Amino acid sequence: MVGATGYGGQELVRLLARHPGAQLIAALGSSQQDQPRTLPGLARIWDGEVTAYSPEALADCDIVFLSTPEAFAATSAVDLLARGHRVIDLSGAFRLRDAALRAKFYPATPDPLPAGTVYSLPEFDAAQVPAARLVSCPGCYPTAAMLSLLPLSRAGLLQGDAIVDAKSGISGAGKGASERTHFSENHGSVAAYGLFGHRHTPEMEQALGMPVTFTPHLVPLDRGILATTYARLAPGVTAAQVGEAYQAAYAHAFFVRLAGDRLPEIKHVAHTNFCDIGWRVDAATGRLIVVAVLDNLLKGAAGQAVQQFNLLCGFPDQEGLL
Amino acid sequence: MVGATGYGGQELVRLLARHPGAQLIAALGSSQQDQPRTLPGLARIWDGEVTAYSPEALADCDIVFLSTPEAFAATSAVDLLARGHRVIDLSGAFRLRDAALRAKFYPATPDPLPAGTVYSLPEFDAAQVPAARLVSCPGCYPTAAMLSLLPLSRAGLLQGDAIVDAKSGISGAGKGASERTHFSENHGSVAAYGLFGHRHTPEMEQALGMPVTFTPHLVPLDRGILATTYARLAPGVTAAQVGEAYQAAYAHAFFVRLAGDRLPEIKHVAHTNFCDIGWRVDAATGRLIVVAVLDNLLKGAAGQAVQQFNLLCGFPDQEGLL
Amino acid sequence: MVGATGYGGQELVRLLARHPGAQLIAALGSSQQDQPRTLPGLARIWDGEVTAYSPEALADCDIVFLSTPEAFAATSAVDLLARGHRVIDLSGAFRLRDAALRAKFYPATPDPLPAGTVYSLPEFDAAQVPAARLVSCPGCYPTAAMLSLLPLSRAGLLQGDAIVDAKSGISGAGKGASERTHFSENHGSVAAYGLFGHRHTPEMEQALGMPVTFTPHLVPLDRGILATTYARLAPGVTAAQVGEAYQAAYAHAFFVRLAGDRLPEIKHVAHTNFCDIGWRVDAATGRLIVVAVLDNLLKGAAGQAVQQFNLLCGFPDQEGLL
Amino acid sequence: MVGATGYGGQELVRLLARHPGAQLIAALGSSQQDQPRTLPGLARIWDGEVTAYSPEALADCDIVFLSTPEAFAATSAVDLLARGHRVIDLSGAFRLRDAALRAKFYPATPDPLPAGTVYSLPEFDAAQVPAARLVSCPGCYPTAAMLSLLPLSRAGLLQGDAIVDAKSGISGAGKGASERTHFSENHGSVAAYGLFGHRHTPEMEQALGMPVTFTPHLVPLDRGILATTYARLAPGVTAAQVGEAYQAAYAHAFFVRLAGDRLPEIKHVAHTNFCDIGWRVDAATGRLIVVAVLDNLLKGAAGQAVQQFNLLCGFPDQEGLL
Repeated sequence: MVGATGYGGQELVRLLARHPGAQLIAALGSSQQDQPRTLPGLARIWDGEVTAYSPEALADCDIVFLSTPEAFAATSAVDLLARGHRVIDLSGAFRLRDAALRAKFYPATPDPLPAGTVYSLPEFDAAQVPAARLVSCPGCYPTAAMLSLLPLSRAGLLQGDAIVDAKSGISGAGKGASERTHFSENHGSVAAYGLFGHRHTPEMEQALGMPVTFTPHLVPLDRGILATTYARLAPGVTAAQVGEAYQAAYAHAFFVRLAGDRLPEIKHVAHTNFCDIGWRVDAATGRLIVVAVLDNLLKGAAGQAVQQFNLLCGFPDQEGLL
Repeated sequence: MVGATGYGGQELVRLLARHPGAQLIAALGSSQQDQPRTLPGLARIWDGEVTAYSPEALADCDIVFLSTPEAFAATSAVDLLARGHRVIDLSGAFRLRDAALRAKFYPATPDPLPAGTVYSLPEFDAAQVPAARLVSCPGCYPTAAMLSLLPLSRAGLLQGDAIVDAKSGISGAGKGASERTHFSENHGSVAAYGLFGHRHTPEMEQALGMPVTFTPHLVPLDRGILATTYARLAPGVTAAQVGEAYQAAYAHAFFVRLAGDRLPEIKHVAHTNFCDIGWRVDAATGRLIVVAVLDNLLKGAAGQAVQQFNLLCGFPDQEGLL
Repeated sequence: MVGATGYGGQELVRLLARHPGAQLIAALGSSQQDQPRTLPGLARIWDGEVTAYSPEALADCDIVFLSTPEAFAATSAVDLLARGHRVIDLSGAFRLRDAALRAKFYPATPDPLPAGTVYSLPEFDAAQVPAARLVSCPGCYPTAAMLSLLPLSRAGLLQGDAIVDAKSGISGAGKGASERTHFSENHGSVAAYGLFGHRHTPEMEQALGMPVTFTPHLVPLDRGILATTYARLAPGVTAAQVGEAYQAAYAHAFFVRLAGDRLPEIKHVAHTNFCDIGWRVDAATGRLIVVAVLDNLLKGAAGQAVQQFNLLCGFPDQEGLL
Repeated sequence: MVGATGYGGQELVRLLARHPGAQLIAALGSSQQDQPRTLPGLARIWDGEVTAYSPEALADCDIVFLSTPEAFAATSAVDLLARGHRVIDLSGAFRLRDAALRAKFYPATPDPLPAGTVYSLPEFDAAQVPAARLVSCPGCYPTAAMLSLLPLSRAGLLQGDAIVDAKSGISGAGKGASERTHFSENHGSVAAYGLFGHRHTPEMEQALGMPVTFTPHLVPLDRGILATTYARLAPGVTAAQVGEAYQAAYAHAFFVRLAGDRLPEIKHVAHTNFCDIGWRVDAATGRLIVVAVLDNLLKGAAGQAVQQFNLLCGFPDQEGLL
């Protein structure tokens, strides 16, 4: 896999090292200049060295995971596909179908997308994954938004637009050291960012087929996202129908847990691959509020990528993820 | 003052002890059974003892602050008014004008409200405060929502309803020890609560004159609220008009700071009486997002109460608050 | 197992539910009055109900884990032993050999200790565990202190006394709601407690055979202990000998990782069963500083108990713990 | 003042802007290349711009505060003294009397120290400050250690060496962005650093006149230090004598509060200039433990510097600090 020193990348190394059906052949950095380094937190789990990127080091890999910046993924994925690898990409490079939007948000990505590119959540449209050459994983925020609304939007239960107000831990800002990621700038604080301009907005709109206003916030914790989504039910839709749609959509989704009386909290999903979902309907106004929580490094990144790997290889959904 | 051991109450003691125009005659608990106790964090600032509640201990107070549960405030305020005191109430007991809503959310409050009751934010309608007998302070969440939207709603710039998605530190849940306030339940977590049912919703709707969907969240910090508010501009309203409305409304409001390019963050207002406000307009859709931050214990409680005190006494707005 | 709703207890349920060699027959509370409840964070991992304590509910268990207050453990362990169960006790009830000290710190514990009682760290004296009837697990702080110093004290490399300055996350204070465990009392703060009087002091002195000054602190995080231990090398002992003693002691200890250049940090062991140990020697003065980190709920409690379980059953050390 | 954008520097700007006896003439960066910038958190308190360093911009300042890296302070202080300014230096450049130690830890500092250099804590030896040309402020950790032990060491109540185990918030690591100050590296974690090698060790030894083992730790909070100090009483010294020595030393020290039954916690001193001190004596062994807490940015830096300013100018100790 490539990008082993980032926060998501380290989780992926941890998962692959313990996956009974995977053999982690190489863990590389996302630069050809990276010095070899170990991952002290993973000692005894994975005692290898992360080395500089080179496609040759991946020669024996059937499947290559890319957990890298999108510009790097955009070019290396094409190269790796040409070399015959299948690729699971965690970056945003291949997520948008619309060429104009892709050119705006991911300018390094080739047009058209490589043949065999599939953008898919394991809980929806999984059937198309086994034949994919390049699996593009949804972003952490879109994963939360899609798991929150897809069962309803696909069933035609919604109208109008949606607002996704998301609260994310700081690991979501990446491992780069900056004023934005400094401890003292975030401890005891909350900050909104990317209003009306975050690149996850078009991804959500593409998946949900409705206009989305998306506002991410940084909250002072390490791992986890809580997304509060506001939507409106189509005329005549009842709370019972909402519940049935969720039950039907996730009847066989091991990693989606529908919360009952208690609303979801990040605490219950941090360090797991679960996404917990709760909701409330205001019958008088048709307003719907959905609360979804997941670990941005697992269900929002490395864990979901392993689910894709399981789909590609025919393993059970949970394999290596419990 | 009454309610000196709570988190907001301790801040009020601190402010009053240092206020050059105030003499803190008594700091009482909100029960007649409270044992005398000191406030170790305030040593050298205020070295008195918090004693049990009795109206007699307040006999020499011109103005009595109530920082207590609302059931206690509902009955003691009436008693104190009858004894000739003026009262500044930080609880919710006297906030709602509508008798039916009040009966639902604050059943201990008398009907009708006492003569001379004024519900007011110091930044709006301050002219009515000096003549008040009972000043009812807005709640911490409504303060954020009102400061975010009143300049626009009063200017007729909005249409439809509003969504207020608020993130609050745990001190907002009060000093009572419970599973909800346990450190380990909140560290590394975020939780939504009170969906469609929080009593601050009718308070916001009363103040703003529009339907409000309000969702509070607990985030893992001690002090501060960040409220993200979503509204729609009326047809033809421009972003420039929005900016002008804010500038006009807060031209003389010392404690409201309009953020420029940088969005507000809790870090900048914690331990101060400031409310920082920033906003963005999406011209294509008429969507408005407002981000407001304040310290729930100061601008959302004790600091705002001191502003009311300054209004009652004719002191400058900042007196005792810098 | 008994005590399933506490923080350590929930971790134990999680571990046992996933342990390939264990069957979790019953998860009980530590009171006969407990109402049945589920553990929402463990849904899909363990979907049972925690029910009230009764020895009959444990009838089919070969081995019973007690993760309860020590007074409860003291009496129920004796009862369970009489019923033929083997017991792994995570409380302090059976840790002290000296009857007078035990009477002082654990007055509910019977004297003499039940036959077949073994107090043991899995990394030391493991050979005596398989024959035990009652395994008494070291406390979370003593585990850190013992893993820090036992390789040296047993090799005769130390002289004088030791100081153990420990920093613990708030989950170590238990799940009970109190002012001490309130979020706002701990966020942004650190507190020392139990100076010269903590019951883990005699446990450390018993294990290490030297006087110990032990000071625990609460630091604002959920899970983890970092113990900084200060000792003196015996005359003539070199830094090299210290390193060799650690290497020898832990050559086969999977869950003890000797840190190299980088000092241990809680981050690397939280949510794992590892204990990372680093040290520095000041050759001029013979001063030694050891830094050890572990997760108090795993290596300091539930994880260590599973290691004992593996010893009792003849499973490999890591079974169910990766 | 110089160094206005650092965490301590911003606190100093805040204090000086509000100090009734001070006029903040210029707030500069510590580089001649700094771009002008505002301090958004201080809007309405201080609305000036921080500009690039130039000695000319300070021409009208009687007293110049340096809150800069020590290499910068070492050279600019000499220049400013030559221009006739008096200087209050918060860096380490002028703290060590011993030339060899200074050469090792602060190589940029001139030898000998400038005439009129005084290193002093406001609570001790304050009489020498008014005549000083250059006041060198103790470091944040040494301040805690000196306030903990000086009353005892000067009274001859101690013997042997001392161990200072300090826990500091991350703002103590400075505003520079690095992996060490990244939020995700510190949240949920504790790390020790600088074992046997921190430059505050010789400063403590110089002040206390005894060998010191000093171990700093980073704990996941923003502001505050808790120092746990271990020492031994000289033969025959009683706990009562210890208490009397503290009472005598701090009878007139407004900003030192001797805790009673309750041990000090950072929470009580964060955002204040207080240092709270508590202690326990084990009569049987003569062991002493002292717990001291302070805000590293105020009592450990900017607040203490304002105390020095008050001494230089003849203002009361508390002026501008309440």
